[in-house]
Amino acid sequence: MDLKIFDRMESEVRGYIRSFPVIFSQARGSLLIDEEKNEYIDFFSGAGTLNYGHNNPIFKEKLLEYLASDGVVHGLDMATSAKKHFLETVDRVLLKPRNWRYTLQFTGPTGTNAVEAALKLARQVKGRPGIVSFTHGFHGVSAGSLAATANAKFRRAAGVALDNTVFMPYDGYFGPDVDTISYLERMLEDPSSGLDHPAAVIVETVQGEGGINVATLRWLKELERVCRRHDMLLIIDDIQVGCGRTGSFFSFEAAGIRPDIITLSKSLSGFGLPMSLVLFKPELDVWKPGAHSGTFRGNNLAFVTATEALRQYWADDLFTAEIQVKERHVRDWLENVVHSYPEAGLVARGRGLIQGLVCQSQPGLANRIAAKAFSHGVVIETSGAEDEVLKLLPALTIESELLTRGLEIIERSVAEALAEQQVSGKVLKFAGGKR
Amino acid sequence: MDLKIFDRMESEVRGYIRSFPVIFSQARGSLLIDEEKNEYIDFFSGAGTLNYGHNNPIFKEKLLEYLASDGVVHGLDMATSAKKHFLETVDRVLLKPRNWRYTLQFTGPTGTNAVEAALKLARQVKGRPGIVSFTHGFHGVSAGSLAATANAKFRRAAGVALDNTVFMPYDGYFGPDVDTISYLERMLEDPSSGLDHPAAVIVETVQGEGGINVATLRWLKELERVCRRHDMLLIIDDIQVGCGRTGSFFSFEAAGIRPDIITLSKSLSGFGLPMSLVLFKPELDVWKPGAHSGTFRGNNLAFVTATEALRQYWADDLFTAEIQVKERHVRDWLENVVHSYPEAGLVARGRGLIQGLVCQSQPGLANRIAAKAFSHGVVIETSGAEDEVLKLLPALTIESELLTRGLEIIERSVAEALAEQQVSGKVLKFAGGKR
Amino acid sequence: MDLKIFDRMESEVRGYIRSFPVIFSQARGSLLIDEEKNEYIDFFSGAGTLNYGHNNPIFKEKLLEYLASDGVVHGLDMATSAKKHFLETVDRVLLKPRNWRYTLQFTGPTGTNAVEAALKLARQVKGRPGIVSFTHGFHGVSAGSLAATANAKFRRAAGVALDNTVFMPYDGYFGPDVDTISYLERMLEDPSSGLDHPAAVIVETVQGEGGINVATLRWLKELERVCRRHDMLLIIDDIQVGCGRTGSFFSFEAAGIRPDIITLSKSLSGFGLPMSLVLFKPELDVWKPGAHSGTFRGNNLAFVTATEALRQYWADDLFTAEIQVKERHVRDWLENVVHSYPEAGLVARGRGLIQGLVCQSQPGLANRIAAKAFSHGVVIETSGAEDEVLKLLPALTIESELLTRGLEIIERSVAEALAEQQVSGKVLKFAGGKR
Amino acid sequence: MDLKIFDRMESEVRGYIRSFPVIFSQARGSLLIDEEKNEYIDFFSGAGTLNYGHNNPIFKEKLLEYLASDGVVHGLDMATSAKKHFLETVDRVLLKPRNWRYTLQFTGPTGTNAVEAALKLARQVKGRPGIVSFTHGFHGVSAGSLAATANAKFRRAAGVALDNTVFMPYDGYFGPDVDTISYLERMLEDPSSGLDHPAAVIVETVQGEGGINVATLRWLKELERVCRRHDMLLIIDDIQVGCGRTGSFFSFEAAGIRPDIITLSKSLSGFGLPMSLVLFKPELDVWKPGAHSGTFRGNNLAFVTATEALRQYWADDLFTAEIQVKERHVRDWLENVVHSYPEAGLVARGRGLIQGLVCQSQPGLANRIAAKAFSHGVVIETSGAEDEVLKLLPALTIESELLTRGLEIIERSVAEALAEQQVSGKVLKFAGGKR
Repeated sequence: MDLKIFDRMESEVRGYIRSFPVIFSQARGSLLIDEEKNEYIDFFSGAGTLNYGHNNPIFKEKLLEYLASDGVVHGLDMATSAKKHFLETVDRVLLKPRNWRYTLQFTGPTGTNAVEAALKLARQVKGRPGIVSFTHGFHGVSAGSLAATANAKFRRAAGVALDNTVFMPYDGYFGPDVDTISYLERMLEDPSSGLDHPAAVIVETVQGEGGINVATLRWLKELERVCRRHDMLLIIDDIQVGCGRTGSFFSFEAAGIRPDIITLSKSLSGFGLPMSLVLFKPELDVWKPGAHSGTFRGNNLAFVTATEALRQYWADDLFTAEIQVKERHVRDWLENVVHSYPEAGLVARGRGLIQGLVCQSQPGLANRIAAKAFSHGVVIETSGAEDEVLKLLPALTIESELLTRGLEIIERSVAEALAEQQVSGKVLKFAGGKR
Repeated sequence: MDLKIFDRMESEVRGYIRSFPVIFSQARGSLLIDEEKNEYIDFFSGAGTLNYGHNNPIFKEKLLEYLASDGVVHGLDMATSAKKHFLETVDRVLLKPRNWRYTLQFTGPTGTNAVEAALKLARQVKGRPGIVSFTHGFHGVSAGSLAATANAKFRRAAGVALDNTVFMPYDGYFGPDVDTISYLERMLEDPSSGLDHPAAVIVETVQGEGGINVATLRWLKELERVCRRHDMLLIIDDIQVGCGRTGSFFSFEAAGIRPDIITLSKSLSGFGLPMSLVLFKPELDVWKPGAHSGTFRGNNLAFVTATEALRQYWADDLFTAEIQVKERHVRDWLENVVHSYPEAGLVARGRGLIQGLVCQSQPGLANRIAAKAFSHGVVIETSGAEDEVLKLLPALTIESELLTRGLEIIERSVAEALAEQQVSGKVLKFAGGKR
Repeated sequence: MDLKIFDRMESEVRGYIRSFPVIFSQARGSLLIDEEKNEYIDFFSGAGTLNYGHNNPIFKEKLLEYLASDGVVHGLDMATSAKKHFLETVDRVLLKPRNWRYTLQFTGPTGTNAVEAALKLARQVKGRPGIVSFTHGFHGVSAGSLAATANAKFRRAAGVALDNTVFMPYDGYFGPDVDTISYLERMLEDPSSGLDHPAAVIVETVQGEGGINVATLRWLKELERVCRRHDMLLIIDDIQVGCGRTGSFFSFEAAGIRPDIITLSKSLSGFGLPMSLVLFKPELDVWKPGAHSGTFRGNNLAFVTATEALRQYWADDLFTAEIQVKERHVRDWLENVVHSYPEAGLVARGRGLIQGLVCQSQPGLANRIAAKAFSHGVVIETSGAEDEVLKLLPALTIESELLTRGLEIIERSVAEALAEQQVSGKVLKFAGGKR
Repeated sequence: MDLKIFDRMESEVRGYIRSFPVIFSQARGSLLIDEEKNEYIDFFSGAGTLNYGHNNPIFKEKLLEYLASDGVVHGLDMATSAKKHFLETVDRVLLKPRNWRYTLQFTGPTGTNAVEAALKLARQVKGRPGIVSFTHGFHGVSAGSLAATANAKFRRAAGVALDNTVFMPYDGYFGPDVDTISYLERMLEDPSSGLDHPAAVIVETVQGEGGINVATLRWLKELERVCRRHDMLLIIDDIQVGCGRTGSFFSFEAAGIRPDIITLSKSLSGFGLPMSLVLFKPELDVWKPGAHSGTFRGNNLAFVTATEALRQYWADDLFTAEIQVKERHVRDWLENVVHSYPEAGLVARGRGLIQGLVCQSQPGLANRIAAKAFSHGVVIETSGAEDEVLKLLPALTIESELLTRGLEIIERSVAEALAEQQVSGKVLKFAGGKR
């Protein structure tokens, strides 16, 4: 396909188009279709934005209805019927059943805007500027979020020093034997550690961009304890792995913790429409009216589909059960791949339907597998600081048959990529454990 | 109407819902309709996002078609047919006729994300952190943009010191007799002024949030000259007053300048859908692939309507002529109001269809007029540091009859607000000239 | 003389040695003597450190006595007899007669350490980070003070962005007709100026390094009023022009203001020994014990000579009268020079015995005059952003005969420098008024 | 003695006067004498400033001679005979015998000014703002140095966020089994650790203020290796433990490393006179003339005594041998004390004549011992984040008899303090190993 106009008019900053150099024209469920009518099974899901597949027909119907009836499309933060229904549904489906009280803040409809609001709120509440973030964490690229994002590729583009954030080692950063929580706590309780008392900790329960690093539930629980003990707010950035990705709607539920602030975006609208939300404990609501604004806070089309997504998938536990079945499927497959190629030093890791195949033995291996998979009809991406992890992120709603077919293609791609070159001797130093 | 659920579940940060305490359910052109079927003439246009009215039927048809055919909705920054058409249309309608070369960067689909990208790019290109912004400027509330936003209401919420930005007086800040460009230039050429050499200047040609302050074309031209002479990039933030608001597609065209970087958002999609764009001179494209990411950079529904907006309204000069006619109408009306109440000390200012009635003689007057107008069926807002400016921002496509009816209601509201209380003695100190 | 060892071993950062390339071995009063026994009349006074001349015999005797008796030399901030006498003398000579109450803080014995302490105190008291400094201000080169220092030569060496400081135009910065206080006040009272509420203003009453810019007494008084009205502390940095340089002990006395914080150093010890002092209103003393430390806070040799300086020179008004006589002498001479060379566009400015001959018509002229003067036996320096001001800074105690002789040499040097080259066409743009 | 005038006139910031509430009037060698003629053996040495004792008679004679002959006292950075002799002596005594080439920069005469210059230089050379400092590190309290100082007592007084510095765990911070260098290296080599590439590492070989934490020579060597490998400058802050404190003139010599930048101050003048020096490799000299200024860079009295100190003590190895003998003496005594009170959980640590008795078992114990010692005639201080370490810092020149007598008094004070109260149960958590 002819990508010339993209090459000519778009900035060098463009990224995914380089991995998938075709022009997509249609999409349905877990299938993407290009202009030449080739089909691709989607194991990327818009980087976690399409948990319910592309153009989910249930949501689409609601959307067409809403548009046809001239429902309000753009509403700033004015009250609209669509927003009212969304609020009611959040209350009924998410909060009441869990017996939780959270206040909602609608921010500009991208993840990073939600993170910016969360960080500002935490700093205002505590009256301190410092934030603790973690190695390999990703929270967005606007200046406030970027300071809490670990990857040098993004940080270098800031053009300014990024401050008020301290990075601590994530769970498993030094291998399975080092308890990184005790490191953090040591720095906090020692008045001469150089760590100024932070306002908050921001963390992902599974680091998607960072290489599918999974925090153990025990670590998350300990982190919550440290936050309470040292008077810091706990912010869970659930933008990539919330909305069901790990099985439950919120990714932290299994750990039994209650974050002070939660950020949601990506799959929140369910239809790939821009939408973001910050939830926080009501007692933290120190915002002044209008103090955090944004033109597209009221993307009512997204409210319509987000409401429907909650109703259809989260009113009971069936969907969770379905995700767990698929998790088992993917996980078994992954472990089988790992064991089939012992000399390749592959490692499987993940939680729910965010699973990774860590390919640290050979630089570039994960990218080669992904490229082969694409040539065979699967859209899949890599993550990690050096793109060393093949990232399996199918829609939660993917049909069994497509899931199986996709995994077969990926397995073939692994085999081909490994066959093409002997396993080289170069093994990265900190290969053991998670990173 | 019952706003209880909003009061109960939403953060105190909510704003516009306080000015317009009804639940809107439908919208068409310049009419908003609430749940009780009351109609309101929209003189606010989603803070400049609905230049072509609500649910413009031409765009809506395209959107329904696209959705029905399962066009790609969410595309990250992958190539899609909808994006291709948008690129082609930008080239054909905006760039070629002007003989301009600009590279396009799609950022997260909110204005502040575009500003963040613009500032990062400028800092990378020049290798210096400093940015010059202006008194009363508004560029967004994520940390990078917020540093360049003047209003204390937003700045105080940051919870951190906002740095790397220096504020200079906007055109007319000290009244009509003081040349603020020469102030800026004095600081730049004096090596001992304390002003570290900035990377860029960011400016709005008309400050919408700041109180409808209009920079003269001469001032803009001088500003461009100063940027060239002192090796700084000129960033025009055209988010609020671009896309035709001042008559031409870009607000700076009348000044005959060629900014290095332009940010667009708000009315870009034409349908109120989140979308943002950064245009910059090709030689500035130092971005590394993927260095500025964002989940919703490819909001394909917005590409569909944005393409249609360019095609329908900007392929020739007819729309510009139509806007000018309406500008004249509003302007005549405004001047008439000013002269009808000489004792009220009202002032008219604006450019194109962003016009303001400055009510500095009485604190709260502009807000009282807006409230009365709403009670009579017009949605209108105020702006300025102390909400002292009644801001007329009708859709560019508003029907003559509605425009006239709206203005009549506003005039009645002015009369009522003035009648209710004598003009008090308190006159703000710097009332003269623009602010 | 052979400066090779300096060239070989010292960093390129060395400065004054380049202007005065001889090796000085002795000094008495206003005479410096080099290794070849050449004598130089000192019109530089160690950049304002030697207000009582070199090796003032009265102080020297005290010092020799103290050393001979094994008085404590190094005392940290422990109590010593020498320190006690200094405290008593400050109280008796400086505070009681003026009916002032100030608390004393001894910092590391350099001016910049005193400024650092003053800024920290102000920020702690007000709980805000912002400081207002002025164009052409100089307050030191350690990171905190450097942020408030205007000159790019110093700022560029920081290697980091310098923040939390905003520069405002000093008195006369835009020429005599522009009231720069009203500019500052406009920015302070406008909530949308971009100026975050500062904790304090730091200012020199005469800018020594900045080019001998003299604030009018009215301007200082207005500045104090603005500080009071806008809840900011007023810090007078009296390091260079305090200790009698302008006639009274404190330079701001003539303006009738009462700063919240005062920094002193340079001539404080009277003998060129390192010593610094911060004075502040007792109610501002929020310091925690030991929170601002420093090894050499107790330079007891300096306490001995500082005590003697206060006793000898400031117990009555005689010295002030003597300085005024000399001021008249220097001033008359300066005005005579200005009038003698009308085509040279020279300007005289200054207060007390800090006087400048502004030579803006020709780049480098002031430096050429200074170089000639040195070759004729006068040590004199230039200041200003472009070294455009010949700076006359004789000891306050200089004998009439030496003063006259020095001025004659300088006048000869002016004549020679002007004769050597025609007045070139290049005239700096903002030559009018002070800068 | 009557300290009323200090209480009345001095700021609450005063510190040591609270530990030693008498007025000292004379001092000779290791004896301090108060106004009532009481003598105290000095085990504090002006926090490491009086390595050669108080008023060392050899230096004093030179000083008296110099003053009597009207040698230049204050010289800015002009060439003087005294400075020339100092340069020659540094070259002959320190550099040539070690076959080292270092360029000298004289800064404002306090340690923190030297650190500020070192940090600025490193940032200029590398063009990056980041500095790595260590837990419990102390480098001064002016803003640049303070950012690299770990102790919260000092940091909190800043009133601004301290940035551009990242704290890493010092040797032994997590106990003897954790290799903290590998932690630092992991963060450096991982592009997604969140650690932006630093310009330099600043470190003390023994942390004096931080609690007499001793870096092993192997750790220092490894640190140098990491600096080389990751393109960072190594700055050794030798202000407190240089000038012979650990036996050799520079504290890092035993480790066989060659720092890029070295800071010296405190005992450099030998007589307690303010003086500082930065040494750096000649190829790093990117300073522009005059770019780091300071009024008291040329404290010529200090040059005179510093020259004499180098001549008298460092021209051969005798003094090093003498220090080692005393180190053995103190160390034996310390270990004896530790073993004599096994239930007290005391720990001895140190290097050369900076030795500590760690009293972590009981909060306040070290301070109580110091108070008792003072009441018995010994001046001694504590250090560490919670003042938990009794710090033995006698003059390197202390006479054997005084050393023995002092140690006896301290031992008695330990016994008394322990006897007064049972060892309480409260044991700090990280008591093991160094901290």
